[in-house]
Amino acid sequence: MKTMTGFPDYLIASALEVALVEDLGSAGDITTNAIIPADATSRAVIAARKPGRIAGLPIAEAAFRRLDPAIEFRVIIPDGGDVEAGAVVAELSGRTRAILTAERVALNFLGHLSGIATQTYAFVCAIEGTNARICCTRKTTPGLRAFEKYAVRMGGGVNHRFGLFDAVLIKDNHIAAAGGIGPAIERAREGVGHLVKIEVEVDGLGQLEEALRHRIDAALLDNMSLEDLRRAVAMADGRVVLEASGAVTLETVRGIAETGVDLVSSGALTHSSQVLDLGLDFVS
Amino acid sequence: MKTMTGFPDYLIASALEVALVEDLGSAGDITTNAIIPADATSRAVIAARKPGRIAGLPIAEAAFRRLDPAIEFRVIIPDGGDVEAGAVVAELSGRTRAILTAERVALNFLGHLSGIATQTYAFVCAIEGTNARICCTRKTTPGLRAFEKYAVRMGGGVNHRFGLFDAVLIKDNHIAAAGGIGPAIERAREGVGHLVKIEVEVDGLGQLEEALRHRIDAALLDNMSLEDLRRAVAMADGRVVLEASGAVTLETVRGIAETGVDLVSSGALTHSSQVLDLGLDFVS
Amino acid sequence: MKTMTGFPDYLIASALEVALVEDLGSAGDITTNAIIPADATSRAVIAARKPGRIAGLPIAEAAFRRLDPAIEFRVIIPDGGDVEAGAVVAELSGRTRAILTAERVALNFLGHLSGIATQTYAFVCAIEGTNARICCTRKTTPGLRAFEKYAVRMGGGVNHRFGLFDAVLIKDNHIAAAGGIGPAIERAREGVGHLVKIEVEVDGLGQLEEALRHRIDAALLDNMSLEDLRRAVAMADGRVVLEASGAVTLETVRGIAETGVDLVSSGALTHSSQVLDLGLDFVS
Amino acid sequence: MKTMTGFPDYLIASALEVALVEDLGSAGDITTNAIIPADATSRAVIAARKPGRIAGLPIAEAAFRRLDPAIEFRVIIPDGGDVEAGAVVAELSGRTRAILTAERVALNFLGHLSGIATQTYAFVCAIEGTNARICCTRKTTPGLRAFEKYAVRMGGGVNHRFGLFDAVLIKDNHIAAAGGIGPAIERAREGVGHLVKIEVEVDGLGQLEEALRHRIDAALLDNMSLEDLRRAVAMADGRVVLEASGAVTLETVRGIAETGVDLVSSGALTHSSQVLDLGLDFVS
Amino acid sequence: MKTMTGFPDYLIASALEVALVEDLGSAGDITTNAIIPADATSRAVIAARKPGRIAGLPIAEAAFRRLDPAIEFRVIIPDGGDVEAGAVVAELSGRTRAILTAERVALNFLGHLSGIATQTYAFVCAIEGTNARICCTRKTTPGLRAFEKYAVRMGGGVNHRFGLFDAVLIKDNHIAAAGGIGPAIERAREGVGHLVKIEVEVDGLGQLEEALRHRIDAALLDNMSLEDLRRAVAMADGRVVLEASGAVTLETVRGIAETGVDLVSSGALTHSSQVLDLGLDFVS
Amino acid sequence: MKTMTGFPDYLIASALEVALVEDLGSAGDITTNAIIPADATSRAVIAARKPGRIAGLPIAEAAFRRLDPAIEFRVIIPDGGDVEAGAVVAELSGRTRAILTAERVALNFLGHLSGIATQTYAFVCAIEGTNARICCTRKTTPGLRAFEKYAVRMGGGVNHRFGLFDAVLIKDNHIAAAGGIGPAIERAREGVGHLVKIEVEVDGLGQLEEALRHRIDAALLDNMSLEDLRRAVAMADGRVVLEASGAVTLETVRGIAETGVDLVSSGALTHSSQVLDLGLDFVS
Repeated sequence: MKTMTGFPDYLIASALEVALVEDLGSAGDITTNAIIPADATSRAVIAARKPGRIAGLPIAEAAFRRLDPAIEFRVIIPDGGDVEAGAVVAELSGRTRAILTAERVALNFLGHLSGIATQTYAFVCAIEGTNARICCTRKTTPGLRAFEKYAVRMGGGVNHRFGLFDAVLIKDNHIAAAGGIGPAIERAREGVGHLVKIEVEVDGLGQLEEALRHRIDAALLDNMSLEDLRRAVAMADGRVVLEASGAVTLETVRGIAETGVDLVSSGALTHSSQVLDLGLDFVS
Repeated sequence: MKTMTGFPDYLIASALEVALVEDLGSAGDITTNAIIPADATSRAVIAARKPGRIAGLPIAEAAFRRLDPAIEFRVIIPDGGDVEAGAVVAELSGRTRAILTAERVALNFLGHLSGIATQTYAFVCAIEGTNARICCTRKTTPGLRAFEKYAVRMGGGVNHRFGLFDAVLIKDNHIAAAGGIGPAIERAREGVGHLVKIEVEVDGLGQLEEALRHRIDAALLDNMSLEDLRRAVAMADGRVVLEASGAVTLETVRGIAETGVDLVSSGALTHSSQVLDLGLDFVS
Repeated sequence: MKTMTGFPDYLIASALEVALVEDLGSAGDITTNAIIPADATSRAVIAARKPGRIAGLPIAEAAFRRLDPAIEFRVIIPDGGDVEAGAVVAELSGRTRAILTAERVALNFLGHLSGIATQTYAFVCAIEGTNARICCTRKTTPGLRAFEKYAVRMGGGVNHRFGLFDAVLIKDNHIAAAGGIGPAIERAREGVGHLVKIEVEVDGLGQLEEALRHRIDAALLDNMSLEDLRRAVAMADGRVVLEASGAVTLETVRGIAETGVDLVSSGALTHSSQVLDLGLDFVS
Repeated sequence: MKTMTGFPDYLIASALEVALVEDLGSAGDITTNAIIPADATSRAVIAARKPGRIAGLPIAEAAFRRLDPAIEFRVIIPDGGDVEAGAVVAELSGRTRAILTAERVALNFLGHLSGIATQTYAFVCAIEGTNARICCTRKTTPGLRAFEKYAVRMGGGVNHRFGLFDAVLIKDNHIAAAGGIGPAIERAREGVGHLVKIEVEVDGLGQLEEALRHRIDAALLDNMSLEDLRRAVAMADGRVVLEASGAVTLETVRGIAETGVDLVSSGALTHSSQVLDLGLDFVS
Repeated sequence: MKTMTGFPDYLIASALEVALVEDLGSAGDITTNAIIPADATSRAVIAARKPGRIAGLPIAEAAFRRLDPAIEFRVIIPDGGDVEAGAVVAELSGRTRAILTAERVALNFLGHLSGIATQTYAFVCAIEGTNARICCTRKTTPGLRAFEKYAVRMGGGVNHRFGLFDAVLIKDNHIAAAGGIGPAIERAREGVGHLVKIEVEVDGLGQLEEALRHRIDAALLDNMSLEDLRRAVAMADGRVVLEASGAVTLETVRGIAETGVDLVSSGALTHSSQVLDLGLDFVS
Repeated sequence: MKTMTGFPDYLIASALEVALVEDLGSAGDITTNAIIPADATSRAVIAARKPGRIAGLPIAEAAFRRLDPAIEFRVIIPDGGDVEAGAVVAELSGRTRAILTAERVALNFLGHLSGIATQTYAFVCAIEGTNARICCTRKTTPGLRAFEKYAVRMGGGVNHRFGLFDAVLIKDNHIAAAGGIGPAIERAREGVGHLVKIEVEVDGLGQLEEALRHRIDAALLDNMSLEDLRRAVAMADGRVVLEASGAVTLETVRGIAETGVDLVSSGALTHSSQVLDLGLDFVS
C-alpha cells in the first residue's frame, strides 16, 4: 500500500477549530498567559515514550501554527515512520505561549492517530506472507473518520468504504426487508450508479452461494469458522473479494488470513486502539 | 457523585451534524435507499453484546430523530445504568430507512461513551472503600471532550478541569520559565480571577514542600512511588487536594488510592478505553 | 430507476440557510413587513407556467416552513411527477408574510431542480426503447450537487459518481503522469479500497483495447464517432460498462444510444438546463 | 458601467469550502492520490473551448490555492475580457495533485459565471445604441447570488436589488393585501428608512398612472406590449425609472429597449444561461 | 412608524447559539446542575427594575426554549410596550435548570435591546410635535446590528441604512478621492443600480449647495450650527431629505429638530445606551 | 494586574466574520466600489476624539487585514495605553477601498472595547490606595464576552468567572431550591471537580455567617450597607474573598472599597459603558 496516503489537509481547519475551542474556551490558557511572558520563545521536541508508528503530524503542526503562524516545525520521523521509545518525532521552535497552549490538542490528535497506525501495523505484521490485507470499518470515532482512515493506511492497512454513500453493503436487515438475498442484490444494482460496487454480508456458506449467483463484487463473511472460511474461498474461486470479520485479534488474525480470504477487517482498529504515548519536551 | 450528571444537550446538534455528514456524505445511505421502501417502518432494540455501563443515550436518540423526527425511542437502561450481555438498552420504532441510516452514528457515539463509563466504573470499583476518587484528564478525543467527561461521571468518576480556561495547572515548563515554583505560583495567583483554583504538578517531595509554602489548592503528584505518595499525604495534612497520576492501571490503582491521596487520575479513561460492544437488532 | 430517489433531507437546512440569508439579509423583506400585517394569513398555490417534471418540493416546503413553522403545505404533484402548463403543484396556507418572504427562495430551488428533471426526462424519452440510460456528471452548480443529482434521478436519469471520492475515473492527465493506461490502472487498483470501481476515459479504440486488458469496470468513450462507438461495444462485449459522452444533444442522443452503449452522459443536464417556469399565486 | 465591479472577495472562502467539500468528501481525490506522486508538479492552462466573456477567475484561483497555497496563477484574460475559442484565459503551475483535484470546482464556478457574463453581454450588444440597460433579477441560483450579480456586471449589465432587504418592490399580492396601489405605496414609504427606494410592479397603464400619483422611484412594467411600453414612457416623462420585463429574448430585446424604457430585466440571465465551455489543459 | 417592526426571527438561532456557548462552555451551568434536581420545575417572571420600553422578548423566549423546548413563556408587556419599575414583562414556567441556565443570556439580550428602545424613545419624546424623526446609524455593536436596529424601531425611531450595501453615503474621503462632490456623486450614480439612493455628507452650506446641483436623495448635515441647519432647510426646500447629526443629546435634540430637518441621527442610540435593568424572579 | 492580558486572538476570526458580513452583506461597500479606483492606496490614522484608554487594536487591525492582506498597520498607542483627545492610536496604509470598507467595523470594535477599558480605569483610579480591585460580571454584550473581559483587564480590572462553567456561584434561587445555604453549598461541593471554587451570594450578615460555616471560597455581598460591609469584612477575617456589588457608581465605589472588601464588581462596566470616540482620518 504505497499510494493514496495523502493526509486530508483540506479537513484540518475545521477539525482543529473544534478541538482548540474545546480546550481554550473563551478565557484561553490562563496558566500560561499568567506565567509566561508574551514574547518568550522556546525550542521543544515531540518525543515518543513508547515504540510505535507515527500518524498525524500535519494536524499537530497545524495546531501549533494556529497559535503562532511563525512557528518552525521540523518533522524528523514522518507519518508512516516507526519510532523507538525516546525517539524525537518533530522539533519545533517559536513563541513559548503558543507551544504550551497548543500542546495538548496537538498531542491528542497525534497520539490518537499514531495509536491506530501502530495497532494496524501490528495486525499487518501478524499476517505477513499471506495474501490477505488488514481493513478498517465504519466503526470510527465520531468526527474523526477521515483522519482515522488515513491512520489505518499509515499502518499499512487498507480502507473499507468511507461512509454509507460510496458503496453498497447489504446486511441482514436489508435482506430481510427485501425478502431474500437475491431481491436485495437486484434492488441495489438497479438503484445505484454504474460506479458503485456491491458487497453482501453473509453469515454462512448457504447465503454466500446464493449471493454468488447474483454477480456481486464482494462478500463479507461474518463470524465464520476457519473451516467455513476455507470453503468460502474455494466456493468463490476468485470471482469476488472475500472479507472476513468477527473476533479478529492479534492471536486469531493469522489463522483467518491463512484461509485465503482477501481482507480481514476489524472495527477495533479505529474504535479501541490504545493511544501511542508521546510527549512534548522543552530543550535548551 | 450524584450530581452534575446532566448530558450536555446543547452541544448535541453540532457534534451530531459532523458525524452524520461524515457517514452520509451527499449521496446518503445508498444501500438502504435502494432496498428499503420509503414508507416501511420497523421496530428495533439496541442491545448490549458485553456487560458494561451505559452512557450516551441522548445523543444516540438524537441521531435517529435527526433522520426521522417522529421516531419513538424508549430508554430501558438509562445512562449510568449497568447491563449484562444481551440486555436491551433501548427500544425504537419508526421509519426503517431512518433506523438503518442512523444506526452506525448512534452506535459509534453510544459504544464509545459507554466504553469510557465502563472502564471508569471498573476503576471506581477497584478502589471502593478508600477515600480516593477516580478522575479524568484533558487527554480526550478531539471534539468529544464534553461528552467524554460526562461519560466519566456516568462511570462514577469525577472531572478534572475541562480545558485550559477553567483552572490553573502549573507544570514543569511553567516552573522553569518562571524561575522556580514560588514565582510561578505567585504570577499565576496575580494573573487570574478570584474564582480560579491553582494546582501544581510536582515530581517529588521537595517540590511539594515548596509548593505548599505558597498556598495552593491542589498538587498533582506525578509518577511518585507509593512510599512517596504516603509521605506526601502526611506532609499535606489535609491542607490541599492531592492528585496522584502516572502508571495507573486496574492492578495498581488500589495501592495508589490506599496511600490516602484524594484523587487518582488517568488519561487512559478517555483516550484508550475499549468501546462497549452494542448492536442494533430488528424485532418483529 | 425506481429506487434511491430519496431527497437528501439532511442537507436541506444548511443549503436553505445560505439561500435565505442571501435573500433576506439583516433587514428582511422590507416590502412585505411594511405592507402586510403580521397576523394576516393567505392561501396560495404553486403553479407551473410551462409543462415539465417536478423536483425539489421538499426544499420549497422547508423554505416556507423556515419562515412560518405552522405553514400548511400540501403537495399535489409530487417530485417526479409531470405537469402541464397551469397545473397546480402544491397548495399552501399560513402567514402571508412568510409566504411572500420565502417565495423567491422556494421558487429558485424548485425551478432550478425541476428544470434539470425536465431536461433529463426529455433525454430519457429520446432514447426510449434502447438499452442505454441517461447519466449526469460532476459538472454541477457549486453547492447544489446533491440536489441536482437528485433532480437527475427524478428525471429518470442515473447518477455518475458524486465526487472525486467515491470512484476512480482515470483521465488523460493521469495516464500521461503514470506513463500509460496500464500503469495508471494498476496504480489506481493498488491505491484504493476493494469497494471502489475503476473507469477509464479513452479517446479511441486503441486506448479502449489497452484498458480492457487491465480489468477495468467501465470505460468512458469520449467524443467518438458513432461508428467507433459501435466497434467499442463489440470490443467490450459486455465485459465493462460503456459510457459515451461528448456532443450529446436531443438530436444526437438517440443515435448514440443505439450504438449499444450502456450510458450516455452529459454535463449540460446539470450546468445548462433551463429553469422550469413556476409561479406562486394567491387564491381567495 | 465601469464601476462597482469588485469581485466579492470576502465571500469566496465560504462558497468555495462548500463546493470543495462537496467534491472531495472525506476521502479526497482517490484517483489522483493513487496515481500522481505527491511531489509531482505541472504547468497547465485554462482555455476557452467556445467564444465568450470571462467572469470568476478570482474564485477559480482561490480553488487551486486552497489545495496548494504555493500555486502560481497568472491571469491572461481578466474578468470582463472577451475570448475566442481556444484562447488561454489563465496559466497555472504547482503541485499536480492540487491542479487535478481543484480542476472541476474551479471550472464549475468559472464556467457558470462566464456563461452568465457571456449571455448578458449578448443582450447588451443587442440593444447597443438605445438608452436602455440590461438588468438582472432575484431569480438567481441559491447560494451564488453575489457571484452571479457580479457576472452580470462583467457582462455589461446592471444589478437590480440584491435581496428583499435593500429596496421596496411592490407586487400584485402586496397591492391586493393593502387594498390598492396607493395604500400599498404609502404603507411602504411609512415603513422604511429614508434611503430606501420604492418600485411598483404594474401590469397596465392604469396601474402605472395610479402609481405615478404616489411619488414612486421606479415602475416595473410587467409583460406589456411594445405599444403600451411606449405610452408608459410618455406617461412617466422621465419622472421615474421604467423597467420592462417579461418575454425578453435576444430577438425581442431590442424592440423593447427602443420603446424608451430605462431598463430591460430578465431572470434568464442568471437562472438559465448556458455554461461557457472552458477546459484545463496540461502543458509540457 | 407602525410598520416594519418584525423581529428578525430568522437571525435568532445563530446569534443565540454564540451567546449560549459563550456562557455555558462545554461544562454547562455547573452550579445549577449540582444543586437543582433535573426534574424540578419552577415558575418565574421577568420584571423591570426601572421604567423603560421593552425590546427583545422573542430572543429571550428563544433562549429559554433552547434549554427546555417545552417551556411556557407568556408575554405580558410585548416589545414596544412601556413599563414602570416593578412591572412584570413576561411569565415563564418549565424546568428549573433551564430557567436558571438561560437566565443571564436572555436578560443580556433583553436588557441591551430594551435599553436602546428606551433611550430612543426618550429622544422621540423630546422632539414630539416637530416634523423630524430620530434615526440610528451604523455605529452598532458588532454582531447585533439587526437586533439593535429593531430596538430603535421599537423605540419609535427609524432606521438608517443597514450596512454598506443598501445605500450610498458619500463622505469626505470619497469626495477627496473623486476630486469634488460633483464627480463623486456622478461616479456613484453610474456605479449602482436604479434602486439605490444617494446621500452626501456635507460639512457646510457650500458643500450642500454643490450637492443639490447633482440631484441627490439626501444630505447628511454634519455638526452644523442651528443657524446653518435652518439655512440648509431653506436651501433644500423639500427637494432632498435632510439628516442632521453631531452632538445630539437629550438637551440639544429638540433645537435641532425644530430647525426643520427631516431626521436627527445619533450613533449613541446603539453604541452607548444604558442597559434597561430587568431581573428574573421565581414565584411560588 | 500585569498578566493574563493576552488578547483572545484565536477568537478574532469568527467574531470578525459576523461583523463584516453584517456590514458588507452580499453587495459590499457600494459607495466605495463606485467611487474609489481598485488600485488606489491611502495612508490614514486612527485618532482619539476624546481621552481614554485603548483596547481592541488587534481586532481592528484584523478587520483591515481581512479586506487587504497586505495592509500596513502600525500601533502607536497599544492596548492598555492612555490617550488624550487628538492622539494618534495607529497608522495604516494600503488599498483605499479596504481602509474605507473596514473602517466602521474596526472602529465599532475598538470604540466599544476602549470604552469599557476607559470606564474600568476610571473605577480603578477611584479606589486607588485601597486593597480592593474592580471586577466585571457576566452581564456582557452577547457574543463579545471574551473581548469585553479583556477590555476590563486592559482597564486595570480583574475578571469574574467567564461563564456558568468555570466556577460555582450560588444565588438565592439555588439556596431556595436546596432548602438552605448549607445544603446548597454541600451539593455544589459534591457535584463539581476539585479545581472549582465556590462563591455564595448573600444578602445579609446572617446568610454570610451561615455560608462561612460551610468552607466556601468567596462571598458576594449583594447590596449591603457600608456598615454591613465593614462587619462582613470583620466576620470573614480573611478566610474568604469578599466581593461587594450593587449600586456601584464612580461616586460610591471608593466608600465601598474602603470597607475592606477584596473586590467591587459592576455589570455596568460591560453592559453600559459609553463608547470611546475614535475616528479614522486620511493623511496625505
